[in-house]
This record gives sequence, structure tokens and C-alpha cells, in this order.
Amino acid sequence: MMYEALLEPNSVAVIGASRTPGKVGYEILTNLKDGGFEGAIIPINPSSEEVYGIKCYPDLSSYGKKIDMAIIVIPAPFVTKAVECSIAAGAKAIIIITAGFNEVGEEGARLQEEIAAICKAGNVDLLGPNCLGLINAHHKLNASFASHMPKPGGISVISQSGALCTAMLDWAVSRDLGLAKLISMGNKADLSETDFLSALASDPATKVVVGYLESIDSGNAFMKAAEAASLKKPVVMFKAGVTQAGSRAASSHTGSMAGADMAYGAAFKRSGIIRADTFEALFDYAMALAMQPLPKGDNVAIITNAGGPGIMAADAVELSGMSVCTLQGASASALKSRLPSAASVGNPIDLLGDADSERYVMAVEAAQDDDTVDSIVVILTPQAMTQPVETAKAIAACAKHQKPILVSFMGGLDVFSGREELLALNLPDYPSPERAVAALKAMSDYSAWLRRPPRVLTRFLVNRRRVSRIINRHLKTGQPQVGEAQAKEILRAYGFNVPLGRMATTADEAIEAAQKIGFPIAMKISSPDVIHKSDLGGVKLNLDSDDEVRDAFDLMTMRIRQRVPKARIEGVYVEQMCKRGREVILGMTRDPQFGPMLMFGLGGIFVEVMKDVTFHIAPITEREAMQMLENTKSFALLKGVRGQASADLAAIATSLQRISQLVTDFTQIAEMDINPFIVGKMGDESIAADARITLAERPGGHE
Amino acid sequence: MMYEALLEPNSVAVIGASRTPGKVGYEILTNLKDGGFEGAIIPINPSSEEVYGIKCYPDLSSYGKKIDMAIIVIPAPFVTKAVECSIAAGAKAIIIITAGFNEVGEEGARLQEEIAAICKAGNVDLLGPNCLGLINAHHKLNASFASHMPKPGGISVISQSGALCTAMLDWAVSRDLGLAKLISMGNKADLSETDFLSALASDPATKVVVGYLESIDSGNAFMKAAEAASLKKPVVMFKAGVTQAGSRAASSHTGSMAGADMAYGAAFKRSGIIRADTFEALFDYAMALAMQPLPKGDNVAIITNAGGPGIMAADAVELSGMSVCTLQGASASALKSRLPSAASVGNPIDLLGDADSERYVMAVEAAQDDDTVDSIVVILTPQAMTQPVETAKAIAACAKHQKPILVSFMGGLDVFSGREELLALNLPDYPSPERAVAALKAMSDYSAWLRRPPRVLTRFLVNRRRVSRIINRHLKTGQPQVGEAQAKEILRAYGFNVPLGRMATTADEAIEAAQKIGFPIAMKISSPDVIHKSDLGGVKLNLDSDDEVRDAFDLMTMRIRQRVPKARIEGVYVEQMCKRGREVILGMTRDPQFGPMLMFGLGGIFVEVMKDVTFHIAPITEREAMQMLENTKSFALLKGVRGQASADLAAIATSLQRISQLVTDFTQIAEMDINPFIVGKMGDESIAADARITLAERPGGHE
Repeated sequence: MMYEALLEPNSVAVIGASRTPGKVGYEILTNLKDGGFEGAIIPINPSSEEVYGIKCYPDLSSYGKKIDMAIIVIPAPFVTKAVECSIAAGAKAIIIITAGFNEVGEEGARLQEEIAAICKAGNVDLLGPNCLGLINAHHKLNASFASHMPKPGGISVISQSGALCTAMLDWAVSRDLGLAKLISMGNKADLSETDFLSALASDPATKVVVGYLESIDSGNAFMKAAEAASLKKPVVMFKAGVTQAGSRAASSHTGSMAGADMAYGAAFKRSGIIRADTFEALFDYAMALAMQPLPKGDNVAIITNAGGPGIMAADAVELSGMSVCTLQGASASALKSRLPSAASVGNPIDLLGDADSERYVMAVEAAQDDDTVDSIVVILTPQAMTQPVETAKAIAACAKHQKPILVSFMGGLDVFSGREELLALNLPDYPSPERAVAALKAMSDYSAWLRRPPRVLTRFLVNRRRVSRIINRHLKTGQPQVGEAQAKEILRAYGFNVPLGRMATTADEAIEAAQKIGFPIAMKISSPDVIHKSDLGGVKLNLDSDDEVRDAFDLMTMRIRQRVPKARIEGVYVEQMCKRGREVILGMTRDPQFGPMLMFGLGGIFVEVMKDVTFHIAPITEREAMQMLENTKSFALLKGVRGQASADLAAIATSLQRISQLVTDFTQIAEMDINPFIVGKMGDESIAADARITLAERPGGHE
Repeated sequence: MMYEALLEPNSVAVIGASRTPGKVGYEILTNLKDGGFEGAIIPINPSSEEVYGIKCYPDLSSYGKKIDMAIIVIPAPFVTKAVECSIAAGAKAIIIITAGFNEVGEEGARLQEEIAAICKAGNVDLLGPNCLGLINAHHKLNASFASHMPKPGGISVISQSGALCTAMLDWAVSRDLGLAKLISMGNKADLSETDFLSALASDPATKVVVGYLESIDSGNAFMKAAEAASLKKPVVMFKAGVTQAGSRAASSHTGSMAGADMAYGAAFKRSGIIRADTFEALFDYAMALAMQPLPKGDNVAIITNAGGPGIMAADAVELSGMSVCTLQGASASALKSRLPSAASVGNPIDLLGDADSERYVMAVEAAQDDDTVDSIVVILTPQAMTQPVETAKAIAACAKHQKPILVSFMGGLDVFSGREELLALNLPDYPSPERAVAALKAMSDYSAWLRRPPRVLTRFLVNRRRVSRIINRHLKTGQPQVGEAQAKEILRAYGFNVPLGRMATTADEAIEAAQKIGFPIAMKISSPDVIHKSDLGGVKLNLDSDDEVRDAFDLMTMRIRQRVPKARIEGVYVEQMCKRGREVILGMTRDPQFGPMLMFGLGGIFVEVMKDVTFHIAPITEREAMQMLENTKSFALLKGVRGQASADLAAIATSLQRISQLVTDFTQIAEMDINPFIVGKMGDESIAADARITLAERPGGHE
């Protein structure tokens, strides 16, 4: 067990234990004792000799013996001292319940930092400050001021909000569901979600990890820990604050599309985390994952004693992207012969309003035996002949634990004892078919993630040194914006096709360049001070002769001098005209938490108006790149509608992988867009027609 | 009261009353008696003298007196006779509980029709068959075999599923919520949702109508009744079967886009019906609507004793399209001065974890007093100092009933009695902030519907007689497809701009037409047997000279003769080339239930690939037509992006209104598309560049 002193201590001191009921120092002590903690409990309070029937000490040194853990509940100004004393007394773990640190301003933040440093120096694990504490039900440890002790079970909870910790605990206790660990992380001065994900991943008592997060401390470490944990057991997370989009100014298309929520979504997906979109979904999913095996596919059998709820469930299954399936062959005909003639063995399987528990068993058995069925949703509505409790027991008795069975006993009083029975027998129960189906979909997605093929990253042969030189030169001269010509140099070095082009500083040079490249050509002003070139008359296309080139050069340089008098003009970039084709945008923006987010979208309005883009955190595999394309709504356009040929999808996927390699190799690249990337038909050459790269000395978040 | 004999009878006969517990004939009788029905109860059963302590008669004639209502629970073959006897005994209402009619096949359907006819002839209201019965809590009438009698309250339920009726009743009873009427409609042989919507609209005991529907009998009548009801009180409906798209073949774009669910959505929206997307939402919304006043706007104040759930609520508010608002001026500063300094009066208003009921009252009062606040969401999580019951009482006591207050007490055991208290005090309570916000959004949408400006239909001056002639000619000659030239004639008669054009039957005629129209021109083969003209070489564009016209005529007629040997060629349509502009699709398809559904979408891929279309049931007002445009995602493109001028939105809206008038005037038009409708800049002329109309002798559903 990681963090053994914290999660399985043999002795716990409560610094600030109190005799006054209602005070946190009292609640913690009584929780420890009433929770049945079997180690030593040492109340520390200079003004009491005894608290709650336990001998009390004025300080840790009077106690004399070593302690494993200290829980500190005294006011903030005294906490530093208490931490030092705890360490001196041998504590390997400290929980600071006390508030008044990071959350109250600078002075509190300074204090918190000081304490964290002391703990680090003392090699002590610190939980909090400003937290509810923690519970380890299997260790009979209630080191919190929550008002309940759950029974031991398979669900572990980590939460950044103490209040939600309490609400979750209260919910679990009221449904008599078991918990393993419940950890309130508070201000996360030391231990955070990343640490606990690792700890709970290797905790045999934990079957499912449930988390409530408001922020993440280190995106990369989190993703690594989350992926490692997800490979071992399901991790369900609720992320609050989804509509608070990043306020950071973004100069690229990709940047302006990528909100913080997109980044969390991409990070969760990448790491196999099951994302709960509502608070109720957290429990709904956790319950199913803790109680039932994962489905192997998306074919859902629905069993019901009423038509209406069966339709509801079927709607929900179809809308979720799973399939309502019908029993096949032998199991269908066997079931049909045993049910009343008016019953339906189609899907939903309608057992009729007078279905008893026996009829449910027949249907569940048939669905279990049928190879086409991956999962089973059982619905019961209270009718005249309905036997909720007996049915719950009978379903549990016939369950073979190979396919998930999720249940919805609908209604209130009539089904209440049946619902209690279901949970007691490890059959997850939901108040509506829709919620059962949503939980099943979460299981199915997680199952698909587990079954995904191994991630194989392609390393392309590239000219890394050339890119390094360009980037360093820009950074040294304080030019974070890489102009088009240099950006294309970088792309060329990473294997992209770019149009032939040359920089010209005089009209004669421009003509010479145009002749070398071959008409028609395009000309673009090159200046670090001119971003929107075409708006200022800095772009001319389709020039067909020497004269046109000369005219364009003179006009362009004159206009830019007039319109941006202080612009440093490096010259005019003379470039081959690109063939026409499908235009897409490929890009990258660096999320402060999760690092390089790759973007893909169809060009122009699809990105700007329809916001039809997908993101993926680099590095990316070929399959993931292809999924980025497939996950846009406009994908059908790339595949070709109305008999058009498909665009060269592989070329786009490869380009995304090359960008992935580039931005992983060079963390100085803060943002980039290839817009447009012109993609031809399968086999044609695709080309990066325009590109923009922004550098940063110290890119945020990504180490 | 409409249907008085059914809903408020003075005497009820139970034909098929039974002495055997568990039998429906027993359950109904005991429900009637135990429910406290104060009128006469007359059990009819030839083999008993007494049932459940009530004198029993062998038949109605032996009873001798007149009855108001009969409930029939005997097997299907005997029902007809029982209906006749009931009518003879003076019954004005009959409930047939018995199953085995329409739902079991042809013979049952015939029987059901026969019985319905007898009732109609006898001027008797019939509920069922194949239903659960009904409950009128205020009349102490439990004429059902449901196992509970709810307390009297303001929510009335109509349901097409008996099982869901039971589940809803069970839910209401278990939360101790009052109901007015509960009506299980069964097979709807006579009375249906339309009748009960009207009845409940004028029922003073009913504050909110809740409905579960699988199908609707008459779309038009339903919409009228629903709109009339919605004007008086909120109507919340759940429609099952949303993914079963209409299987009808559709030849137009509009037809292929419009599934049955789109039609229900459009009909509900039009009629002011609040649509519940999940079963739980039905109750969630009904509870809020029954207990709280409607909000006057979208500004939501959030009050919480914990940060996390406050963020959840704020996310939900923003995602729903409402606004999280901050208290202003006086009320903000007054509140700030009364709360602890660490509390936040921003929004969410965070009262801190130790908030007592008094602190909640201060915040609720401040939010009520603040003019910027339209509605209030109160969140409570169980923490050390929390007083759930006292807080519930205190909030109820300070409520001024001017703005809705929705509450979420999160958790289980700790808040259970607080939650009970809330409901008892008419404060709707939800297990999560998200569900409270969803209910608030439903209230807000309904409130906006009520406040909508009066619907004023524009009648355009049109040439109705010309259209009548064209349509009749087509129908007489059995040609449901109206060709492009004639379709454009129809559009021209209804005020559309169409390109100049003439039919030519020889090359010389084509040249003459082209000269009259002026080059460049387009030519299109005209044949009722050639639908995809351009695929078969039947379209030539941009012809610029006499020679080109002659070549095109000869080539086109030759190719069509080769490729569709049996095609009847009417000639070649010679037409002015259209200017370029924004292309949109305007269309109409006739839904079998709800009649003419107008469609709008941007042309080409926006309709075909992005499915970015909106629907509205005709007739349509100018404002509604404009909303159709605004509700597409691609609307920004019409308004103009990157400094482009806006398209002439008014021209599109007017055209939708003209189509609305056309398809309302001519119900023989089954489907039509104008694709593309080319729309210019504001002030430019817009033009119907291509059109297709399909006729039907008897268009389905729309009377």
C-alpha cells in the first residue's frame, strides 16, 4: 500500500481534540473512536486530561511514543508548529483539516508553502490543508469530520470539494453501498489527484475510482497516472467548471477553438477516464462498474414487463450509439415457447404486465445464453402481479456474471424494497431506463478503450537540426512569430510538401525566382510586423509574367510602407501557385495543463462557423489521427459525397503525426496552424499551402 | 367540468366485480371503496350476493336505478353486451379495463370499433379499452386497479401506458406529492389525449398537466387543444419512440430530413408544450411548475454552502443558455455586510460550510429583492453545522412567491428529512444542482412562450386560380410529379421571382426563346419520367450563342432517348442563367400527423452532410420564419462572416411565409423543394432557381 502511514496508520494523534460536541476537533476524535479504529488514538489538548473517554496529552512530547499520523485541527497560525512537533514525534503522515491557507490570499499561501516544504524535508505525506480528512473503511479508519462511516466496499472516492465528499458519503450510506477509501484533498499542498490515482490503482480493496475535480495540478503527470490506473480499474471523473473557457488570448485558429474543457475532454479520453457529465452520473456509473462485468460489445437486450418503458430504453440505447439486439435462433425459440403467447421475444422482450419473477428469470437466462447479446437491461414497473423483491432475488440467483445486467425498477414505495434487494445483491438499479442505459454506455466505452490496439507511434525521418537552428535564431532575436517562409522551412524539414518558393528583396530577384519556379506564381510580403498580409495588400496571386511580377513587387512594397510605416520588410516571398483541392486546417495549441493539443478541421467556415473540429493530445498514433478525422461531422465531405472521390485521408493522418512529432521534439512551439493544408485525391500530392508558427521561451504547463 | 360522468360520477357500477383478491375486478372495487368514494358503488356479478361488504347484483337491470358510470372488467367477448346494458342503465361514461382489442389483431380491432360505435350512438364517453382506469383525487374516486390513492394536489397525469401510470403514481405517493387526475388512456377507442387536454385545461383543480404519449391520434386537433391548454397552464409531455424515424419513402431533401421526431418536436414547440426528454424530467419539471411561479427572465442567482456544487450549478446554467447573475448595488452590499467576511456575494453566493438557516434566509431575501434576479437556485450540502430541516422551513417562510425558488439538498440520510420538508412546503427539491437547473430552464422556456408576441400571419396577394389549374391538370392526368417549368409557374403565381424561361419543342424554338430571354441561357430537358436530369445529360448551362443552343438541343434529346428510351419528352426548357449568390433550400413535407412541415437550410453540404436544418409547422409568421433561419448553426454565414455583407434574410423569411400560404391553400401538395433558392445581398433580388413539387390526391393526416 502506498501512503501506508496515511491510509493504514497504527497510531493517530488528533492535535486540537476537543470536548465540545459540534467542534471539528470533537467530531474527528469521536469518528475515529466510533468508526472502530483499532490502533492508538492520541488526543492532544493542553487544557483537557481526557476527551471522549480517551486519555489526553498536552502535547506530543508528553505522549512520548512514536506516532504514525497526526490530524491537525487547530487554527492556522499554530499549524506550522504542530507540523514540526508531529514530525519530531515520528509522524509519517499529516492531515491538516484547518482552513485559512491558499484559499484566503497571499499570507495563507505563504504559510501553506512553508508547511509543505517542512513536510517534504521531513519525508512526510501531507493531506490538505482545508479538507474533510479521509476514511479507509477496510481499516476501520474514519479520520474525517464527516458524519457517517460507510461499510467496506469497492468504490473509492477522491474529491477536491469537502462538501461533495460529504454528499457522496451520505448518498452511499443511504443506499447502503460500500466504499473503500474516501479522500478529501482540500488545497492539495502536497498529495493530489495524481498521487491518489496511483495509490488507488494498486489498492486491492478499490474496484472503481470516483473523482470530483476542479483543477489538475500537473497535466502530464495526471495523464500518466490516470492511464496507468485506467488499465487496472475504471476511473470515473466529474470535472467542474466546464464553461469557464481559458481566458488566454489565442492568435491561431486552433488556439481560439481550444477551451479548457476541450483539453480536459481530450486528456480524459486519452487516459481512459470515464467522464461523468453530471453529479448523478458519477454514482450511476460507479455503481455499475463496481457491481457488474464489462460488456464485450454494444448489443443490448432489453427485458421489460411494460411496453412504454421498453420503448424508452430502446430509444436511449439507439441515441447512445449502441444497438438494440434481438435474440437469435435457439435461445429465442426456447424463450418463446416458455412465455405466454401475447409476450414478445423481439427486443424489447416484453414479458407482459402480469410477469412474475419466474418469467424474468427465463428471459435473463435466454439473453445470457445468446451469443449476440453483450449486455442486459431489465425493467420492472409495479403492476398487479409484480413481485419486486422476489424478482430481484431471482435475477441475482440466475446471473452468470459474464455479461453486465443493469436494472431499473421504476416507481416509489411499491418497488422500494425490491430496489434495496437489488443493490444488496450487486445488481445496479436506476430510477429510469435512461439512466441505466447511460451507465451501460459508460461501461461499453471503457471496455472499448481497454480493448484498443496497442499505441504505436511512428517516428518519421526528419531534419531536426535545421528546425532547431531556425527556432533558436528566432528566439535569440526575440521574434516569437515565425514568418511563412521560415515556417514552411520547418515543415519541409519534417517531411511536408510545401510549394516551391524563394525570398526576393528586389523586383529583379523576384522575376528571377518566378522564372526558376515557373509561372503562375504567388507573391507575399514577408515582414514580422505584418500578420494579416492580404488585408493590407501584401498578397498577389496567379501572376503570369515578368511584368506582372515587377508590378506586384513595386506596388506591394509601396503599399506596405504606406500602411505599416514601421514594418520591417524582409522581402517578398515568391511561390509556386498551389493546385486546388480540399482545404483542411491542421494545428496545435499548447494547453497550460495538458500540453500539445492537435487540432483538425475542414477549412474555412467548417472551423470558423460550424466549430466542427476535433482535438487530440500529442503524441498521436496513426489510428488516433484517423479517428480525429472520423470524429468531425464534415468527415463525409472528405470521404466524398455524390460520387466524388475520397480525399487522401492517409495524407492528412500522416501530417497530423508529423506535427505531433514536431511539437513533441520542440516544446518551444507554442502554437501552429497549417491553413490551408490542401489535400488531393488518394495518391495525389498534398501540400501545406500556408503556415504560421508562434514560439515561446517557456511554454506553459508542458514539461 | 367536461366528462363529468367520467371524472365526477355519483354512481359507479363495476361489471365483473370479484371476491378474489389479486383479480382486477376485486382491486377496482376495493380501490373505489377504500379510496373513500362517496357515491353509490354497484358491484355486478351473477355469482355473488355481496362483494367486499357491498351488495352485489347479477346484472344492471336487477339494480334497477340509473347509473352514471360503468367500469367493465369482464373478458373481451362479453364486453359489447356489458356496454349495451350500461347504456340502457343510463351510464354516461364507461371505462373498459379489459384487454384483448386493438392490440391483439384484426378481430380485436373490429370488436373495439363496434364498441366505440355503440358508445358514440349512445352519447357515452368511453375510456380504454386496455387501460388501468382513472383516479380523481379531489372527488375521492379511484376507478383504477392501481395500488395507491394519491392525496389531492395540482398535477394531473394522462398516459398511454398503464405501467407508467402506475410508476408515476407510485412515485408521487412515495414523495407525498398531490395529484389531481390520473388517467390511463389505453387503446383510446374514444377519448384521447386531445380530449383530456381540453378537459384538464378547464379543470380548476389541475395546475400542471403531465403526459406520456406513444402516438397521437389527430395531429391538428392535438395541436389546437395543446395550445389552448398551454395558454392556461403548463403541459409537460414525454414522447416515447423518438428514434423510430418515419419509414415513409421521401423523394425530396425536406422529406429525407424530417423524421417523426422532428415533427413532434415542431408540434410541441408550436403548441407551447414543455418537452421532457427523460422520464425523470417529467416529474422534475412538473414539480417546479406546480409549486413555483414562472421566471420573468433568464438571470439566475445561485445560493450555496459549498463551492463545488455552486460551480456545478453555474456550469449547468451557462450550458442551458441562461445567465448566472450577480446581485447589484444595495442588495449586494446589504448582504455582504451581514455575511461573514470569507463568504462571497458574487454569483454563486457562497454562504460557507458553516451556514445556518439564518444565513440562507439573508441570501434568499437579498436575491428576491434584487431586480436583476429572475430566479433562485438554492443548494445545500450536509456539513457539520448544516440544518437541513430548519433551512427548508426558513426558506419557505421568507419566500415571496414572485420568483421561482428551486432547491437541491444534496446527499442521502443527512438531508432526507430536510427534503421531505421542502416538498411539504412547496419548494421543489432535486438530488443534484443540474436537475434543478434543467427544471428552471423548462420553466423559463414556457414563460418565454407565454410572453411571445401575438402570431400575425401575413396573407400575400397571389394568383390562386392559376395554381389550382396546374394542380388539377396534373392530378387529372395522374402526374403527381410537377416538372420544373410548371413548379416555377406555381411559385411565380405565389409571388416568387423565377428565372425567365420558355418551353421549346424544336431547336429553332429553343434558339428563338434564347434570343428573347437573352444570352447566356440554360437548357434543361423536360420529362415527367426523368428526375435526375443532369446525371443523364439533360442539363446544359451557360450557353452563349444560337449554335450552342442548337447543339445542346439535339444532343440532349438524343441522349435522353438513348438512355431513357420510354421517357415522354415534353420539350426543352430554355431559361435565363441565374446570378450567383448564397444558396439555401426551402422546402415542405407533409407529416402524417402534423401536416405541412416547412424546412430551411443552407444549400448543398449544409443540408446533406451537416444536417443543419430547421423545421416549423405551417402556417408560419414572419417572426417564426426568421427564427427558423436563426436556429441553424450556419446562420452566421447568412449574416456574413469576415466582413461579408449579410444575405437578404427578409427575402428568405418572406419566401418561407409564401410557401406556408401555398401549402396551406393547396393540401394536394405533398412535398416541395426550392433548391437552390439563390439569395442576394440585402436589396438584391432573390430567385427560386430550381423547384420540385410532388402532389398527392389525399395527403395523409392533414385535414
